[in-house]
Amino acid sequence: MDKNQVKTLLEQVAAGDTSVDDAVLKLRMEPFTDIDIANLDTHRALRQGVGEVIYGAGKTPEQIDRIAHTLWEGGQRAILITRMSEAAAEAFTKDVPFEYFPDGHSAVVGAQMEPDVRGNILIITAGTSDIPVAEEAAVTAETLGNNVERIYDVGVAGIHRLLSHTDSIMKARVIIAIAGMEGALASVVGGLAACPVIAVPTSIGYGTAFGGVTALLSMLNSCASGVSVVNIDNGFGAGYLASMINHMEESK
Amino acid sequence: MDKNQVKTLLEQVAAGDTSVDDAVLKLRMEPFTDIDIANLDTHRALRQGVGEVIYGAGKTPEQIDRIAHTLWEGGQRAILITRMSEAAAEAFTKDVPFEYFPDGHSAVVGAQMEPDVRGNILIITAGTSDIPVAEEAAVTAETLGNNVERIYDVGVAGIHRLLSHTDSIMKARVIIAIAGMEGALASVVGGLAACPVIAVPTSIGYGTAFGGVTALLSMLNSCASGVSVVNIDNGFGAGYLASMINHMEESK
Amino acid sequence: MDKNQVKTLLEQVAAGDTSVDDAVLKLRMEPFTDIDIANLDTHRALRQGVGEVIYGAGKTPEQIDRIAHTLWEGGQRAILITRMSEAAAEAFTKDVPFEYFPDGHSAVVGAQMEPDVRGNILIITAGTSDIPVAEEAAVTAETLGNNVERIYDVGVAGIHRLLSHTDSIMKARVIIAIAGMEGALASVVGGLAACPVIAVPTSIGYGTAFGGVTALLSMLNSCASGVSVVNIDNGFGAGYLASMINHMEESK
Amino acid sequence: MDKNQVKTLLEQVAAGDTSVDDAVLKLRMEPFTDIDIANLDTHRALRQGVGEVIYGAGKTPEQIDRIAHTLWEGGQRAILITRMSEAAAEAFTKDVPFEYFPDGHSAVVGAQMEPDVRGNILIITAGTSDIPVAEEAAVTAETLGNNVERIYDVGVAGIHRLLSHTDSIMKARVIIAIAGMEGALASVVGGLAACPVIAVPTSIGYGTAFGGVTALLSMLNSCASGVSVVNIDNGFGAGYLASMINHMEESK
Amino acid sequence: MDKNQVKTLLEQVAAGDTSVDDAVLKLRMEPFTDIDIANLDTHRALRQGVGEVIYGAGKTPEQIDRIAHTLWEGGQRAILITRMSEAAAEAFTKDVPFEYFPDGHSAVVGAQMEPDVRGNILIITAGTSDIPVAEEAAVTAETLGNNVERIYDVGVAGIHRLLSHTDSIMKARVIIAIAGMEGALASVVGGLAACPVIAVPTSIGYGTAFGGVTALLSMLNSCASGVSVVNIDNGFGAGYLASMINHMEESK
Amino acid sequence: MDKNQVKTLLEQVAAGDTSVDDAVLKLRMEPFTDIDIANLDTHRALRQGVGEVIYGAGKTPEQIDRIAHTLWEGGQRAILITRMSEAAAEAFTKDVPFEYFPDGHSAVVGAQMEPDVRGNILIITAGTSDIPVAEEAAVTAETLGNNVERIYDVGVAGIHRLLSHTDSIMKARVIIAIAGMEGALASVVGGLAACPVIAVPTSIGYGTAFGGVTALLSMLNSCASGVSVVNIDNGFGAGYLASMINHMEESK
Amino acid sequence: MDKNQVKTLLEQVAAGDTSVDDAVLKLRMEPFTDIDIANLDTHRALRQGVGEVIYGAGKTPEQIDRIAHTLWEGGQRAILITRMSEAAAEAFTKDVPFEYFPDGHSAVVGAQMEPDVRGNILIITAGTSDIPVAEEAAVTAETLGNNVERIYDVGVAGIHRLLSHTDSIMKARVIIAIAGMEGALASVVGGLAACPVIAVPTSIGYGTAFGGVTALLSMLNSCASGVSVVNIDNGFGAGYLASMINHMEESK
Amino acid sequence: MDKNQVKTLLEQVAAGDTSVDDAVLKLRMEPFTDIDIANLDTHRALRQGVGEVIYGAGKTPEQIDRIAHTLWEGGQRAILITRMSEAAAEAFTKDVPFEYFPDGHSAVVGAQMEPDVRGNILIITAGTSDIPVAEEAAVTAETLGNNVERIYDVGVAGIHRLLSHTDSIMKARVIIAIAGMEGALASVVGGLAACPVIAVPTSIGYGTAFGGVTALLSMLNSCASGVSVVNIDNGFGAGYLASMINHMEESK
Repeated sequence: MDKNQVKTLLEQVAAGDTSVDDAVLKLRMEPFTDIDIANLDTHRALRQGVGEVIYGAGKTPEQIDRIAHTLWEGGQRAILITRMSEAAAEAFTKDVPFEYFPDGHSAVVGAQMEPDVRGNILIITAGTSDIPVAEEAAVTAETLGNNVERIYDVGVAGIHRLLSHTDSIMKARVIIAIAGMEGALASVVGGLAACPVIAVPTSIGYGTAFGGVTALLSMLNSCASGVSVVNIDNGFGAGYLASMINHMEESK
Repeated sequence: MDKNQVKTLLEQVAAGDTSVDDAVLKLRMEPFTDIDIANLDTHRALRQGVGEVIYGAGKTPEQIDRIAHTLWEGGQRAILITRMSEAAAEAFTKDVPFEYFPDGHSAVVGAQMEPDVRGNILIITAGTSDIPVAEEAAVTAETLGNNVERIYDVGVAGIHRLLSHTDSIMKARVIIAIAGMEGALASVVGGLAACPVIAVPTSIGYGTAFGGVTALLSMLNSCASGVSVVNIDNGFGAGYLASMINHMEESK
Repeated sequence: MDKNQVKTLLEQVAAGDTSVDDAVLKLRMEPFTDIDIANLDTHRALRQGVGEVIYGAGKTPEQIDRIAHTLWEGGQRAILITRMSEAAAEAFTKDVPFEYFPDGHSAVVGAQMEPDVRGNILIITAGTSDIPVAEEAAVTAETLGNNVERIYDVGVAGIHRLLSHTDSIMKARVIIAIAGMEGALASVVGGLAACPVIAVPTSIGYGTAFGGVTALLSMLNSCASGVSVVNIDNGFGAGYLASMINHMEESK
Repeated sequence: MDKNQVKTLLEQVAAGDTSVDDAVLKLRMEPFTDIDIANLDTHRALRQGVGEVIYGAGKTPEQIDRIAHTLWEGGQRAILITRMSEAAAEAFTKDVPFEYFPDGHSAVVGAQMEPDVRGNILIITAGTSDIPVAEEAAVTAETLGNNVERIYDVGVAGIHRLLSHTDSIMKARVIIAIAGMEGALASVVGGLAACPVIAVPTSIGYGTAFGGVTALLSMLNSCASGVSVVNIDNGFGAGYLASMINHMEESK
Repeated sequence: MDKNQVKTLLEQVAAGDTSVDDAVLKLRMEPFTDIDIANLDTHRALRQGVGEVIYGAGKTPEQIDRIAHTLWEGGQRAILITRMSEAAAEAFTKDVPFEYFPDGHSAVVGAQMEPDVRGNILIITAGTSDIPVAEEAAVTAETLGNNVERIYDVGVAGIHRLLSHTDSIMKARVIIAIAGMEGALASVVGGLAACPVIAVPTSIGYGTAFGGVTALLSMLNSCASGVSVVNIDNGFGAGYLASMINHMEESK
Repeated sequence: MDKNQVKTLLEQVAAGDTSVDDAVLKLRMEPFTDIDIANLDTHRALRQGVGEVIYGAGKTPEQIDRIAHTLWEGGQRAILITRMSEAAAEAFTKDVPFEYFPDGHSAVVGAQMEPDVRGNILIITAGTSDIPVAEEAAVTAETLGNNVERIYDVGVAGIHRLLSHTDSIMKARVIIAIAGMEGALASVVGGLAACPVIAVPTSIGYGTAFGGVTALLSMLNSCASGVSVVNIDNGFGAGYLASMINHMEESK
Repeated sequence: MDKNQVKTLLEQVAAGDTSVDDAVLKLRMEPFTDIDIANLDTHRALRQGVGEVIYGAGKTPEQIDRIAHTLWEGGQRAILITRMSEAAAEAFTKDVPFEYFPDGHSAVVGAQMEPDVRGNILIITAGTSDIPVAEEAAVTAETLGNNVERIYDVGVAGIHRLLSHTDSIMKARVIIAIAGMEGALASVVGGLAACPVIAVPTSIGYGTAFGGVTALLSMLNSCASGVSVVNIDNGFGAGYLASMINHMEESK
Repeated sequence: MDKNQVKTLLEQVAAGDTSVDDAVLKLRMEPFTDIDIANLDTHRALRQGVGEVIYGAGKTPEQIDRIAHTLWEGGQRAILITRMSEAAAEAFTKDVPFEYFPDGHSAVVGAQMEPDVRGNILIITAGTSDIPVAEEAAVTAETLGNNVERIYDVGVAGIHRLLSHTDSIMKARVIIAIAGMEGALASVVGGLAACPVIAVPTSIGYGTAFGGVTALLSMLNSCASGVSVVNIDNGFGAGYLASMINHMEESK
């Protein structure tokens, strides 16, 4: 039952051609029918406040191109594309504003939103190899209108490097802690911070690093409170969630 | 928006107090709202053809007792209770028809339905230790109105035992193949049968049987076609699905 | 003991050269001997109603070519080839009717059977990346004589997309639910449908998707009844089983 | 080097007994030394805004009793005790205000804080067996000064049960989605909600539920954005993090 | 088609009532039918040379008692019962010869066969905790007519203890090497021996011993040739296979 | 202490320069010293009856060439090379007798030994993809002087194909059962055979076949007696062990 | 060939009854024979500097009693017993000096050795639940003659607690870092320390702590150098190795 | 608060501009601030006695080049680069002393330190395939000033090969035991040696070797005392730790 069908039914009720009881019955019988045929993107923006994001992995450059242009034509003005190869970025039809961020393998069609909140999202990594995941998170957060502070390569084996940034950790509104290998960064940061910490395990390491599983398990078992975890290498997910938290309105 | 609210809205439309367009808008804004407050059980029976089933594990005898009586009062007349301990069965308030099936750790409040299809569901196990799972499947299928044929302890290590039942295997409408250890029964039966085979791994075995995981993996990798798998020890699930298939109406 | 040997034995009995008791003894001692040397394919078609299928993975184009032509010469007229690369398809000797389905990496030698049942098999996927597995299932089911309805990219994170197809879900005779990542599609569809649901986990996802294992586990633990599972990416197996169920004759 | 030692050093500098350079050297040589011997709890409350929490599992009733009383004497007035058995609760010395919450196996010494934010934390479970974890989360969140809304037993296999609460889902400031078995609840809720969703896998299920691992993996692979995950059965962690997010001050 | 049916068919052929061609056809159509209804045990002894063995785990004392007496009445005179608790042994009806071997949790109804081969089966364990598995193997082998030599507690960490038995290792006809923990015994023994080595991992150890999985993996990866492996703690399987090899007749 | 040192010591004893007690003491203090510097291969052939085998994987063609020629010069006349690529075979210096077996990726320098035992080793595979592993086993066994019978592609899903070879199964002295996927072949063959069965899991299959782990687990849990298992794809190990068993001398 | 046989052979050489060459040959043929029948314990103390240790788990109180007294009678004066229950300690025959350490579930027969090195072994734990493992390590190290410093409950989530002990960390000769859950302690300590760090994962934690596996993996992937790992809960192994390192003599 | 700020504060105290109490307060409030801005490398050399090491994997040749030159300019004179490809070695700017060790995929900028301790580090491998890991350990240890003895290809399956090196094993100060497959080498060596044994599992093997996991588990479960383990293929970590132990000063 689409919008027109609902409208027709209501007109019949208004005209007295269908009784109220019959109409109730009819509606009851299709409790799950989507009565809205509006554009999916618009709907999502209304429902969750953020437009569609294009996950580029496994999509051909042509597919990415077409989806992005369709969203653009649909009116979306900050279209994030993640996991986009440089080749795909080069092949992209540049008849719309387009910026590629090679460090995070991401792009934005249109423009990143101006930061509309004052607070910072702090992105912190254990090693330099974690930077691509960190940049995916950073581009995501910036596109969604956040200020991002980056502190990279401050793993816990040299704890003083990390502690020299205690100030930034204590002032952040949300922290994204990114680490591979043993993932201990999340626990130490979680113990220092007074804000939510989103832990992102990365697939960095060898042998029993198991492609990020060790870091993931370590983070899930963090003895610090206020830490939650997303999938391995999921920079986008962390950036998206951090933005959501950073945009919380005061509730008092 | 519940039934009454919908009714009120429609009455307002009928009375001209609300325009058709406004009513459409209002309904569009709650596409997911349940407009039916009817009893959950009834709804399920309407939607899927089978009433509520009580999964007894982890429920106290009192909880089972209360839920079963509520369903009975709601009009359901063949209420299946699975994973019910003998203690719970003894404690059950017998003011309603109640039968306990100790081999399958299951019970029926009311009565099992008379078989309403001619064909057989064949339940076949590799060992005697698999029988409790088999009986859970059997009680489930019988309660839902099926004839059940049982062939137990015909594991593939003595292939002639199994082959002596080729006739039953070839005549069955649906087969439930139940095995622990290496779970090879499903492949051999799947190769002989011309009907769907539902494979149920059991937690029987020791060492690398890994509580049924080996049998599960074996069944998922069956080289025979027409075999699908349910969770370890899930006799109920197999019996339920077998009944669903056995009750298929001809489509030609 | 092959057919000729059996014949010889029986002729000796007929001629009185071998006593009945001796012949019984002789036959008893070879209870497992295949006394039928008929062509394997024919036998299979007789036994299970479906001819041989060629699993193309790991076979050279030449091997596929030879097996397919042998089956064709043996009289089989709807020979399904799954997991066939485009290269193998191009190299195929086209002196027999041949159609390649690139989306499902499958081909048919001869022709797909005309649908001989009225009901639909509904194939539903969570994402666009699941489509190759879906098309393998679809080609399989169509080759075996079924009508197939396709609904793609309706994952549960946008539940209204899925719910807008409730009608199709409720009318299907069998559903194949295909999903990678967290595989939740199977549970939601299983809760809506009144027919058997065959869940196919796909190797889509990254990190802890573990090449389909997460989706598989999720589907095995579905809280919905009537759901069973096949191996990861096993579109053929799902299509084959769905066809088997869809062709069930009424049993009443 | 403790506070007194630092003080002595500074007094020596003030008195001219130690040169500035020597003092710098001395301090540089102990960059990590804790120069604060203040009570640990107080420190934590200053640093992270929440006092010490007692994790009761693996502690004897006597140990719990002693730690709680020490904290009370230290001035903490809302001391949360999680994983506390009924036996430990009974044995607790009741010379301080003490309330036990049997559903969540938790207790509060002193009193739960009055809600100091208007928004709701919504706690939603797939099944009734998930309730103990949910109540641990609820007691935690309430103790930390939050309003909690509970919606239990709305698993995705009966999607309309869940959808009938769309309103609550859309109005919540933070959601805690709790599920065992296949854990699909997190994905569906994540797709409906516009706020952060904290997913808690529970050890509910059997066979391949693997004590919560399947639900955990499912949640980590959620196709919905805005979802993060904590350890299996970690109701406390979810409640703590939810409170942290719910107490975010506006940043604009 | 059972023995009588076959006999009838052959009599019809002999009588000229059925043509040879018809009889061939009839027999061809039931290639899998068991034409032997003889007692299962007898059949097994004929086919594999060893009578039925009773696996006691998961069976009640009554069940063990009944099966053993049935086999005895069927004529079997060396009935092995494995995984039999002392309680079950005490409860056993002693109206037949019965001996219980507490170290190997096994019993024999009737009597162990006199050794009928001259060569030794050498059973060697890494630790004293492996002895129950070793004794299960020993009782099995002795019951089946073998001489058994036992060398216990000669793990590789004290390699000279093991090497002091080089003579026995070199003279054995078959070796059963039993170890938990890291299972290295199998590799060292395999490198010294000139005969088949059957490796039995045991569930001895803690932490990452994983209930025998580490020993199993270690044994499967043995760099020594001539080593094969059975399931964890499967002393019976090793003893049975060792006896089979020890009884090989010369083939030249 | 090498041969010369021992000789010198003994000469001193003979000459009366060293007392017997001192010599005993000296020898006692080096219980682990290798007193034999003879060529490794010769030693191995003496100790285990089989010369060195070259495992080609991970070795350069030059390394294989050099080792093989060294062994040849040392007098070994049937030098087996396993896991040898065609490229390595082509590059091999053909100044010694050399035969390459492409199906088993193996070669023999010198010549395979003439079968010196009458009995057969039966090699049986579930599918055609298992043949490379089977041929590695076959070349190994033939090189070591055994007659080999091959039965390929008789998986249990078409049980009659397997049963048509019951005769061969019953007459074999040793059986090597090779299968990937669910590995059920080992159980069925083990149930039919009266001789030792060496099960070889192969890495054939997809999804939950897990590169042979499922077949391995299935084989370890075989409900048939007389079955033991070697590492995944370890055709050489199976062929070597089968030869060892086949060459057993009678012990009576 | 035991000591007497060697002596006899040498006497024959001395007497000229056996030629030197024959004797060489004879000795060459038994390269692995243990020619030393000295007492095992003595031998071990000679070889590795530490007497036998009794691993109490899985041993009856009687067995422990007997072994300990035998060692005592053999002259060993500091006999360590690990994993000894209080019951076993109570049952121990106290006719020899005996001290039980309940925190570490260990005992010493005789007396702990006086510390014979000046340096400290530092034992540091993340939580209070790790103390039993720590005490097992401590008792072991003290028994073997070491000074032990204990710092307990300084997990990384409160990094300042750990840093307040930087002095002890920097002055230690060997550190044993013990942690369950996410095991991050080892990395942070490893980064601070200038000495070898032995990491001991413990089975503390719940859910994805997986009985210590997560801590183990974390420790194996430590980004700090100088860290090695022992088995889960293996306090004895850590204490033993630490003592070995602490007793290193200077090599310059 | 950096060094200058601390100095300024102290000068203020000295000048009487800041009271002692105020200064204490100020210092207390920044317990984690790094008060040292000295060059990271220098700091590390001071703290742990060893300069920075460059882990080459995942770094571009340019990055390696730049980091190495920066360290060189910073004064470090023995810069170890591990996991460096030949291509990176060729591309390296040779304006500083540079030596590449292809067997260990490592390089040294500057020069390896002269051995400054007399004792040996013994590196011992089970197979030839383990040599690259062994050489990484050897280059590491040599660069850090140690004598290294190499014994390669002495796996336990030919135990006499290993035992012929008992002398070296008994005289070593530290042993690095390197093995893939079943990793049994560590246990046997551990049983022979009187010094610490660092076990390094390698990713050598196939099938259930699981890329080194089997060897790792085997080593963690070693029944020999004095054995600890590092990550799979972590030759550097073993060499670094061995050097640390080898440089222990006497403590008496």
